Amino acid sequence: MKNIIGANSICQVGIVVKDIEASAQRYAKIFGVDVPEIIITDTVDLAHTQLRGRPSPARAKLTFFKMGQLSLELIEPLGGPSTWKEFLDQHGEGVHHLAFEIKNMDAVLKNLEAEGIPVLQSGDYTGGQYTYVGSEAVLGTVVELLENF
Amino acid sequence: MKNIIGANSICQVGIVVKDIEASAQRYAKIFGVDVPEIIITDTVDLAHTQLRGRPSPARAKLTFFKMGQLSLELIEPLGGPSTWKEFLDQHGEGVHHLAFEIKNMDAVLKNLEAEGIPVLQSGDYTGGQYTYVGSEAVLGTVVELLENF
Repeated sequence: MKNIIGANSICQVGIVVKDIEASAQRYAKIFGVDVPEIIITDTVDLAHTQLRGRPSPARAKLTFFKMGQLSLELIEPLGGPSTWKEFLDQHGEGVHHLAFEIKNMDAVLKNLEAEGIPVLQSGDYTGGQYTYVGSEAVLGTVVELLENF
Repeated sequence: MKNIIGANSICQVGIVVKDIEASAQRYAKIFGVDVPEIIITDTVDLAHTQLRGRPSPARAKLTFFKMGQLSLELIEPLGGPSTWKEFLDQHGEGVHHLAFEIKNMDAVLKNLEAEGIPVLQSGDYTGGQYTYVGSEAVLGTVVELLENF
């Protein structure tokens, strides 16, 4: 049997929050660690952010807590249409995605499309690219594919 | 700084679904693995299930996919009041909890209570006990504590 994603180890759990500074403080206190650096995603000219095939100026504040094999990512949407903002509007704070580090993004996306899982949002970051796929109906959650170069 | 939970490695991600057989089939297909065994939680006389301090006859069907360090757990609520059913009713399918394997359940629960995180649901399983804590407002998601004996 073929693994369509080509990876089975979850590398990241992403949680959408309303106020990342406050959430990061609370995580740091509960887990007894320093508050990690909070970064802002690149502007659309650098990130080439697309939501359902259309360019979006959406950005987000991000921070990462290392938890064993994986990172727990906190995400605060900063405006502009995005899967992060849609999730926050529809569900409130909560776990938005599970991420897998993959190779051959285009091939994986093509195979997922054939399974009824379309591209939701994509973009670039320093050193790689990400794609969120609309896997809610199939897998119960959004999945993020990360390809580092 | 003290880690109040006493663990920082996520051992399980729990996803609440409507139809576990269908969801498990879809996961198995996407990840190229066999469908794992689907089990049913013990009856209340064995599991001692409590929701917010009151006994509940709630049960669930469960199955586990191994994904690197952690298990991806699918959960189908089977009726009776439970955090699983509440989540499904309020959010639809989605990631319900992140789990940590801990020691000294009572001490951890006392320390979390002091941080504004109350007990939500608890129960026993063969070889251990679990507690879901109501950490949505503090951490953006329910956390499950697992203590194996």
